[in-house]
Amino acid sequence: MKDITILGSGNVAHHLIRYVQNSHSLNLQQIYARSPEKIILSGLDVSKIITDLNQLQEADLYIIAVSDDAIGELSDRLPFENRLVVHTSGTAPIEVLNAKNRRGVFYPLQTFSKNKEVDFKTIPMCLEADTDDDFETIKYIAEQFSDHVYQISSVQRKSIHISAVFVNNFVNHMYVLGNKICDEHNIPFQILQPLIKETADKIVSVKPIDAQTGPAVRKDSKTIEKHLAFLDGNIDLKNLYLTLTESIQNYNV
Amino acid sequence: MKDITILGSGNVAHHLIRYVQNSHSLNLQQIYARSPEKIILSGLDVSKIITDLNQLQEADLYIIAVSDDAIGELSDRLPFENRLVVHTSGTAPIEVLNAKNRRGVFYPLQTFSKNKEVDFKTIPMCLEADTDDDFETIKYIAEQFSDHVYQISSVQRKSIHISAVFVNNFVNHMYVLGNKICDEHNIPFQILQPLIKETADKIVSVKPIDAQTGPAVRKDSKTIEKHLAFLDGNIDLKNLYLTLTESIQNYNV
Repeated sequence: MKDITILGSGNVAHHLIRYVQNSHSLNLQQIYARSPEKIILSGLDVSKIITDLNQLQEADLYIIAVSDDAIGELSDRLPFENRLVVHTSGTAPIEVLNAKNRRGVFYPLQTFSKNKEVDFKTIPMCLEADTDDDFETIKYIAEQFSDHVYQISSVQRKSIHISAVFVNNFVNHMYVLGNKICDEHNIPFQILQPLIKETADKIVSVKPIDAQTGPAVRKDSKTIEKHLAFLDGNIDLKNLYLTLTESIQNYNV
Repeated sequence: MKDITILGSGNVAHHLIRYVQNSHSLNLQQIYARSPEKIILSGLDVSKIITDLNQLQEADLYIIAVSDDAIGELSDRLPFENRLVVHTSGTAPIEVLNAKNRRGVFYPLQTFSKNKEVDFKTIPMCLEADTDDDFETIKYIAEQFSDHVYQISSVQRKSIHISAVFVNNFVNHMYVLGNKICDEHNIPFQILQPLIKETADKIVSVKPIDAQTGPAVRKDSKTIEKHLAFLDGNIDLKNLYLTLTESIQNYNV
């Protein structure tokens, strides 16, 4: 049974606390939060919540789940040395943690919202540590969360985070634009949801490059011209259509 | 029991034939195909396949499921008048069909591959007809396929098709780019699949504009600068990152 202490009260902290609280192989030792009123979890033993770092007890792992900018300072203020301390950021390098403790990264690759349950078993855990021994400890703990555990360097993690911008932020923006076009023509956006689902499902079995369809990849200039003419009233949308069409044609050769 | 005749042997024809063949409320009357050898469906009564338009019998609905360019000519060559004839295209207007017959559109909004089963019940059917009576007939038949039946004009259908380019073609291209970044850093692309799935699932319950997250929408210029520096070696990818970041900032105000 590993003792886990979680520092933070944001979205990631919230889901980590809930998971460890219900785990049979991990013990939720303490929660440090500057704003304890933010931590609303049924069945939680509130005596575990502390607001003073000096009250921190011994634990096998301290998980710092705060915003990127706050990680370094919080790790500086920890009143102990040579214990295992990790952060949960997709972008911050392992070195932002103060080297007086043994350092690691425990990055769950998913978007978290407080009011939406997550299934940790399916979430890729991207792990890093300064030493092999500490990596094994972090790995054991991560395996209590998820079936998908990866050793990922700080540089790799940064590239994952940029990929995530493409497949999450930019993809969602495509949904925003599709929704806008639908709204302008009084079409309920949910009409596109089965297509959106199938598009995401398809690449589980087909490489994205092989799943590419549509006028751009088949160089159907007649349809592309018709679409551009249709978008004539919205110069931003038209330019974006053209830019993305050219990008598809450059990458799928 | 409505008699349905299907003309064509491509992906859409293939799935329509299979569905009608197994339907209890629709009768597969005939299949017209120039290349009947393309139609490989177990249990199909091959005597129903004809290669000569003059063999076409009376039917309640003739579904022309051929490429956009071929619809007009095939409808010209039909050896009868005043019967109900529809096409299945997302882009072609209803008028490409020869007006000697009663015209309509029967557009299933989904991507079809021959070797991947589809569940018609979930596919939005976009319908159009010249008259109310014919619309009711097409609607009844479409309801035997799907729980999601919509009356959609030719102009609306065109805008749906353009939205579909954004939420399918362009989204898949984002997957291609994410995959490329992963490959360059020896990261298995499947690490992003839970995030891709969650991104698509989220907009079932949240409007895309409200689901937008990431450095662009929160105007986190420090992270954006870091990402652009990381992409410095690939000018195309860097420009696209910048263009899409600006587009998010323009639309989410």
